[in-house]
Amino acid sequence: MKIKFLISALLLLLGSHLVSANDALISPNGIKLPADYKNWKLISSSHREDSKTLRVILGNDTAMESIKQGKTNPWQEGSVLIKLVWKDSVHPNFEKATVPSEFVHSEVMVKDTAKYAETGGWGYARWLGMEQKPYGHDASFVQECAGCHAAVKENDSVFTRPSKLP
Amino acid sequence: MKIKFLISALLLLLGSHLVSANDALISPNGIKLPADYKNWKLISSSHREDSKTLRVILGNDTAMESIKQGKTNPWQEGSVLIKLVWKDSVHPNFEKATVPSEFVHSEVMVKDTAKYAETGGWGYARWLGMEQKPYGHDASFVQECAGCHAAVKENDSVFTRPSKLP
Repeated sequence: MKIKFLISALLLLLGSHLVSANDALISPNGIKLPADYKNWKLISSSHREDSKTLRVILGNDTAMESIKQGKTNPWQEGSVLIKLVWKDSVHPNFEKATVPSEFVHSEVMVKDTAKYAETGGWGYARWLGMEQKPYGHDASFVQECAGCHAAVKENDSVFTRPSKLP
Repeated sequence: MKIKFLISALLLLLGSHLVSANDALISPNGIKLPADYKNWKLISSSHREDSKTLRVILGNDTAMESIKQGKTNPWQEGSVLIKLVWKDSVHPNFEKATVPSEFVHSEVMVKDTAKYAETGGWGYARWLGMEQKPYGHDASFVQECAGCHAAVKENDSVFTRPSKLP
């Protein structure tokens, strides 16, 4: 009886641990960090003089297909963009080159016009640092994202323009 | 007889056209622009203050496997890195953001210790602009590449350090 109780307690602990490990990558508005984003294709890059950060933007297959078809205003339903952000540093052997140092955060935009009608058809999420801590105390954090992205409303609320490649 | 001659002449013209279309992407030292590089994975990015350019570095599967295994000094045989370079521009809606404008060139490094023993085990190539014109009048252009990369000899002649990601 005692052993049965102990096993149950252990399973319960193990269960809650597994749940929290999964939950860790879910944003307060329910968006999950895409598991395979490191395999996504290059859309563009940027450097911000104000926050002293380097950024690379990757896209899922739907986003890349949207670019190929020239359908990025608006982007096609199901397009997902991820922006990866690092703090600036000076290249140790080339002082005129700014290169990434510590990882700051990942930011995701998910195109679902119906689901995210209140924020211009895009769902927003951010995960902080190497521990990928979801940003925002509750789902209202998206107002901050949408507020800033309002500046590019005429470009389907997307700052990124796909980089030209031959 | 006349028709036969005309057909032969046409085939010859067509043949030389096809050859030159293929040759266009071959560097004077024989390195060919990898056909599928747009599907390659992200290694890092940078910004150069001197040339006012933004850069993204992608890798083939062997290069990505080298990074995963922590074997980047030296990189594993068969690793190929491509650096994509764009001129700076100011984001039209966010003046503190530097974003890519016109495409400058692609640069490739191919790890083959035996084949490229004279240039530190790496084969170098560059293709200029949207027309992807191979750089260099003859194969001796690689001395220019190797000369600059000598500054990072202690890092297997590679300037790029893979960006940290969670």
